[in-house]
Amino acid sequence: MAQISLSRRLRRTPFSDGVEAAGVNGYTVYNHMLLPTVFESVEADYHHLKRHVQVWDVSCERQVELRGPDAARLIQMLTPRDLRGMMPGQCFYVPIVDETGGMLNDPVAVKLAEDRWWISIADSDLLFWIKGIVNGWRLDVLVDEPDVSPLAIQGPKADDLLARVFGDSVRDIKFFRFGVYQFQGKDLVIARSGYSKQGGFELYVEGSELGMPLWRKLFEAGEDLNVRAGCPNLIERIEGGLLSYGNDMTDDNTPHECGLGRFCNTHTAIGCIGRDALLRVAKEGPVQQIRALAIEGAPVPPCDRVWPVYANGKRVGKVTSAAWSPDFNTNVAIGMIRVTHWDDDTKVEVQTPDGTRAAVVREKFWI
Amino acid sequence: MAQISLSRRLRRTPFSDGVEAAGVNGYTVYNHMLLPTVFESVEADYHHLKRHVQVWDVSCERQVELRGPDAARLIQMLTPRDLRGMMPGQCFYVPIVDETGGMLNDPVAVKLAEDRWWISIADSDLLFWIKGIVNGWRLDVLVDEPDVSPLAIQGPKADDLLARVFGDSVRDIKFFRFGVYQFQGKDLVIARSGYSKQGGFELYVEGSELGMPLWRKLFEAGEDLNVRAGCPNLIERIEGGLLSYGNDMTDDNTPHECGLGRFCNTHTAIGCIGRDALLRVAKEGPVQQIRALAIEGAPVPPCDRVWPVYANGKRVGKVTSAAWSPDFNTNVAIGMIRVTHWDDDTKVEVQTPDGTRAAVVREKFWI
Repeated sequence: MAQISLSRRLRRTPFSDGVEAAGVNGYTVYNHMLLPTVFESVEADYHHLKRHVQVWDVSCERQVELRGPDAARLIQMLTPRDLRGMMPGQCFYVPIVDETGGMLNDPVAVKLAEDRWWISIADSDLLFWIKGIVNGWRLDVLVDEPDVSPLAIQGPKADDLLARVFGDSVRDIKFFRFGVYQFQGKDLVIARSGYSKQGGFELYVEGSELGMPLWRKLFEAGEDLNVRAGCPNLIERIEGGLLSYGNDMTDDNTPHECGLGRFCNTHTAIGCIGRDALLRVAKEGPVQQIRALAIEGAPVPPCDRVWPVYANGKRVGKVTSAAWSPDFNTNVAIGMIRVTHWDDDTKVEVQTPDGTRAAVVREKFWI
Repeated sequence: MAQISLSRRLRRTPFSDGVEAAGVNGYTVYNHMLLPTVFESVEADYHHLKRHVQVWDVSCERQVELRGPDAARLIQMLTPRDLRGMMPGQCFYVPIVDETGGMLNDPVAVKLAEDRWWISIADSDLLFWIKGIVNGWRLDVLVDEPDVSPLAIQGPKADDLLARVFGDSVRDIKFFRFGVYQFQGKDLVIARSGYSKQGGFELYVEGSELGMPLWRKLFEAGEDLNVRAGCPNLIERIEGGLLSYGNDMTDDNTPHECGLGRFCNTHTAIGCIGRDALLRVAKEGPVQQIRALAIEGAPVPPCDRVWPVYANGKRVGKVTSAAWSPDFNTNVAIGMIRVTHWDDDTKVEVQTPDGTRAAVVREKFWI
């Protein structure tokens, strides 16, 4: 295995000192920023996440802030999801598409006020697309990347931990809603959201000064809850069917191919740049779609490239993420499968670097 | 040191198999793609680069292709460099700026024909900015990322190696010009360019099929030239003053701050989106600028964050890249220094993670 070479270009975060002190063992790079991938081991981290509570440095979920009279018009131009009913205090998962309906990002939009939004992005410079659109369409809106670094609290004891620091009212925050709390006299947006199926919160930390004080406070408060530093877990996210932009989908894919058709209101999302292209897809349906796959046999190697999927010698799709699942005692995987073979329980073959494996297509993920 | 966690999102290249077989020891991530950073050691790689010839997998220098009647108008909108005199067959280094004059990328533009260009990009999703501009301005041009992966041949024996594979006519390719050659019956753009001061070429390899055959051919042909797999070398690029987008400059900086004023023809670059903002900067001059710095004492640690620069207790700039130079027997560094302290031979202090060091500002780089 190769090491990662650190440089200023792979940006550190307000929590990097804490992450290092906690013994981070692996990194990836996400939005030009360091994202931890493993502390003890991917499997040990996984078991702990499902039983206790973890603090995740997900600063790399950078924000694009929209501010000004055209902010609401702009965000509707970006996504086929109809945002007319969205209220301040809500978070919406919004596929972002270009004029061909290709996915540019799959962020969470945070509506702070009618004229102020954060878009909490996956791994692409969505800021550049939005700045280009604003310039070309001459919109009256400020767009930039504010210094906001999300910190996620994930796991079954997340409510207990956060209630100790911010009071019991955090327990009342509904899924994909947020409240504004105080830490050391500063406002802190806390949303019930996060990139796991174990429940929890994301804290949008503004500036870097509060970073380590907040990190330390959480660890002090949660010592008897067995709180640990963690990170998005490869195994758990595949079990839960949480897609990863760049891994499971790219700008080649429409939201419908990604199984995100339910977030596309192509008839009513007037103004969306990709609407014309997606109306056609919504009508006819995609010819390939994201599916879960159980890959048989021993644990698969790391999925660092596309693994072709075959049936009767014909290419019918590809696997894009895979890992051994201790809880389900099989290799869990995410792939893009053609319509001819995407029904539940279809048998296929996956060509891994270690050889061909039998696999079963599933319509549902594991958790 | 932490390991890098591989995934499909950190894209492999047509040459990855060769890079791995050559014993790559470190990676960074650049345009969502793996970029090797070290083979034997950064110092050993450096000595070899200056004496022999290396083959670099710089596939991560992705292309943005512009094709169509508005291609020439579009590229002039993107850069303050006047491109009217540029001919097919030429490569131009073109700062790319937004409407505020902030740098979005510092690529090399390759003019293939009047209506067809490649923009060979540094580490940001420039494609997104350009797609947004094209959409908003309704330009008649196709924009996408073609499957083109540059392979660089760098070092004093680069001409000898390439002449063995493509014939002696490659020796006649002038600096920042290209010719079209053949390899296994396919066209291959070969430019005299590259991210070192040791001379050499960049081969723009279309598709992935030619990747490993070309890689192997180069190593067979260059065995007695002591050809090795290499990569952009941190020490050599600092000695040569080769800037790195994301390290030494960001979208906060104007080209003039980056010492790239000579590539800005703000009076004649009609149509450039950032022209108005840069006219002001060109007139008044920047208040800070890129400088070389020699940092005294023992070898500095890796520069993975901004190091503040002080003089008489006042902040006067920052160091953004640094390394120990065996050939110059000092720490070589790149920084952004305020006008009050940017003259040659000015003494300053650099605050490194290991403590404060004396340093000297230089108007010229080492090579």
